[in-house]
Amino acid sequence: MRPVSIHTGAWRYPGAWPDANFNFRHLVRLAQTLERGRFDAFFMADHLAVLNMPIDALKRSHTVTSFEPFTLLSALAPCTERIGLVATASTTFDEPYHIARRFASLDHISGGRAGWNIVTTSNPDAALNFGLEEHREHGDRYRRAREFYDVVTGLWDSFADDAFVRDAESGLYFDPARMHVLNHKGPYLSVRGPLNIARPVQGWPVIVQAGASEPGRQLAAETAEVVFAAGGNIDAARAFYADVKGRMDRLGRDRDHLKILPGVLVTVGDTMAEAQEKRALLDSRVHYDSGIASLSVMLGTDASRFDPDAPLPDDIPETNESKSGRERAIALGREGNLTVRQLAQKVGGYGGGQITGTPANIADTMQEWLETEACDGFNVMFPFLPAGLDDFVTKVVPELQRRGIFRREYEGTTLREHLGLPRPANRFFPAG
Amino acid sequence: MRPVSIHTGAWRYPGAWPDANFNFRHLVRLAQTLERGRFDAFFMADHLAVLNMPIDALKRSHTVTSFEPFTLLSALAPCTERIGLVATASTTFDEPYHIARRFASLDHISGGRAGWNIVTTSNPDAALNFGLEEHREHGDRYRRAREFYDVVTGLWDSFADDAFVRDAESGLYFDPARMHVLNHKGPYLSVRGPLNIARPVQGWPVIVQAGASEPGRQLAAETAEVVFAAGGNIDAARAFYADVKGRMDRLGRDRDHLKILPGVLVTVGDTMAEAQEKRALLDSRVHYDSGIASLSVMLGTDASRFDPDAPLPDDIPETNESKSGRERAIALGREGNLTVRQLAQKVGGYGGGQITGTPANIADTMQEWLETEACDGFNVMFPFLPAGLDDFVTKVVPELQRRGIFRREYEGTTLREHLGLPRPANRFFPAG
Ligand SMILES: Cc1cc2nc3c(=O)[nH]c(=O)nc-3n(C[C@H](O)[C@H](O)[C@H](O)COP(=O)(O)O)c2cc1C
Ligand SMILES: Cc1cc2nc3c(=O)[nH]c(=O)nc-3n(C[C@H](O)[C@H](O)[C@H](O)COP(=O)(O)O)c2cc1C
Repeated sequence: MRPVSIHTGAWRYPGAWPDANFNFRHLVRLAQTLERGRFDAFFMADHLAVLNMPIDALKRSHTVTSFEPFTLLSALAPCTERIGLVATASTTFDEPYHIARRFASLDHISGGRAGWNIVTTSNPDAALNFGLEEHREHGDRYRRAREFYDVVTGLWDSFADDAFVRDAESGLYFDPARMHVLNHKGPYLSVRGPLNIARPVQGWPVIVQAGASEPGRQLAAETAEVVFAAGGNIDAARAFYADVKGRMDRLGRDRDHLKILPGVLVTVGDTMAEAQEKRALLDSRVHYDSGIASLSVMLGTDASRFDPDAPLPDDIPETNESKSGRERAIALGREGNLTVRQLAQKVGGYGGGQITGTPANIADTMQEWLETEACDGFNVMFPFLPAGLDDFVTKVVPELQRRGIFRREYEGTTLREHLGLPRPANRFFPAG
Repeated sequence: MRPVSIHTGAWRYPGAWPDANFNFRHLVRLAQTLERGRFDAFFMADHLAVLNMPIDALKRSHTVTSFEPFTLLSALAPCTERIGLVATASTTFDEPYHIARRFASLDHISGGRAGWNIVTTSNPDAALNFGLEEHREHGDRYRRAREFYDVVTGLWDSFADDAFVRDAESGLYFDPARMHVLNHKGPYLSVRGPLNIARPVQGWPVIVQAGASEPGRQLAAETAEVVFAAGGNIDAARAFYADVKGRMDRLGRDRDHLKILPGVLVTVGDTMAEAQEKRALLDSRVHYDSGIASLSVMLGTDASRFDPDAPLPDDIPETNESKSGRERAIALGREGNLTVRQLAQKVGGYGGGQITGTPANIADTMQEWLETEACDGFNVMFPFLPAGLDDFVTKVVPELQRRGIFRREYEGTTLREHLGLPRPANRFFPAG
């Protein structure tokens, strides 16, 4: 994740690295620790602007300086051997030719470990960094994303897997009959091709999606192989799971070809009391200004104008930013019967899914989710670094392994193999 | 360079790696060998389309599959310690927010070793991969490049060097008075800022430029710290040197703050005869179809329609691609009194500057160029890999060191320090 500890109080936790998010040596250690824990992948989120919050909250945020994901993940590639490397890239503010090349390069350099988290970018300030006066409309962003996916995957298929013969004797470098020129012309994009790089090791890097709105779910059902779900309670997770997998059934896609991984912030203690104390200490490190700003981002409207000691008003306006974020914040306030101040404090640290407890408690919860169609796995986040991650790898992972619900060794070498996903056929050269 | 051996026959040379350009392990070995040779930097050129040549020539080209430069150089960063990492990025087909972030990231990850080769992209086929029907006009590309440079350097200066205080006690991550919002609005670009990454280690990554036309030279004189010149004969090089440094004088820039490095393909032999044999063998590996296609690219017009056994006609049309490339090809044909076929064979391998000889011959030539204001150094290219590079590092480098014209050890840690370039002040926070 970016920041590598998503909780806004993480950098102030006693003993934590305040610069965990922006220190390459720390990040190498993190990736290597995750690999020792046999994680599928290291995920690097991405944002194309500083957080859209007032400066009094922004100045407290450890996300303001971050590495760009391709530079970071490429640098981590030679420092690791097996772990997948998943980066976010925006379909709203980038070009398919660039995105296709970068993921193909990362996939080749890492030996087949790349994954692309497709986002449409909800932060409206990103638009201002890319020549626009206003953010693109939500539905429009998703329509462009769908076409963008077709173009990128089409570019990845520019060459058959066996196109590069490199016959020094005859002087033939590649077989021209095994190259395809895309010639795409659509409502949003026009891209000729071919891509100037061989087909990725995995055929296509793994496609990840994290949108949760109606068009976000539909995009996931049509294209994604992994979904980062928002987390939350188990009933909501089951409903989301059934919804997305049901969409796949209707599209004729195999349900097993998409893995739903809710985000979960895991705080480990040797006793429940210890875990809860850690979490309470972490939450106490969030400043109120940060809390109200986070709430504003989630709602897509300025929350500082509401009475802090009353519940959220009923008439929160619709938003062009994250529709699912707005709904989640309203639901959290309603469920807990919270005042604006309490809700701000809650979402100010981290408002998504979480498990706090002993290794056995955590494994129990994970097992329940896995075995009752609430999810296919988890996008695990750590409360502070490095201790929060070390606790997970040394205490929770062995417990999951003992129960036989997590690998002891990597069986394959590519991210697709870790996830049990098939390698896609080349649409222009079906035989390889 | 990309391909790492620019000569089109390189991949067919006996004993050479046919996939030198697209094999990450080979590239690690190359970068480490260059570092052992105490080179300033490893340079990775870049192109946003496959070469614009007919398929019968393209199929013989080892450039068709290449790594994207940021992914490659970032992956090389942890595999090396001191050598600079210079990537090309286009101002015509990319966004300043992306470019500023990526170079800043590479600079942080590598500890201050990044450089940006600013190009305006002469290959017209790139436009077709980025939604355009036609290439942008040459002068227009350079005007955009000039503004693009202002925006990128402005974004790098978003934070003072000491902005990130990370005071866990008070909860202040950065000092808001040390952040600047660019708010750029110009004829080509509108970018708000701030950049979401700390100021680069080097202040700004080193600015490189490789255009040679009138606007290319002016852009270099105004902005560049390194110029990759096209190479050629010593008189032309001196004229170019005097022209660019003269423009700097008129702009009030210190001449020493720009290093002119002509490209030179160096073929080493223990005797002159051996070196010449190697070079002849290399040239013989170029197919005529490749030669005529390279000539077409240089001229910006289809050369296969000319009589192969007559000289170039006088009325070669003006071009919107590389103006200097067109002039160089015409001059080469005229100087050597060559037929189209001979000229094609000559530029088909590599038509730029070259030295072929013993280590002493090579050092003599380099010394003459360095001592008579023909250049400040060289952009050395190797005829085939790995042997061509190994010969240079084990035979030519010691000769240059013996003469006291090349370093024995790196004195600094950043690319600026290797090149003797000052660290630029932050324009918004002059004190740091
Ligand atoms: C685990 C997770 C990771 C996400 N990563 C990113 C990211 O890196 N960049 C980004 O702009 N949005 C990211 N998002 C936000 C989603 O892409 C999406 O914009 C958001 O969930 C709102 O969904 P909607 O646009 O469908 O309403 C992430 C969301 C989740 C749950
Ligand atoms: C050593 C060297 C390296 C170059 N690298 C690139 C490159 O990576 N990408 C690119 O598009 N052009 C590259 N060029 C081409 C120049 O950027 C420029 O387009 C060309 O020299 C024509 O100059 P002009 O546009 O000023 O006429 C390079 C030129 C030289 C001499």
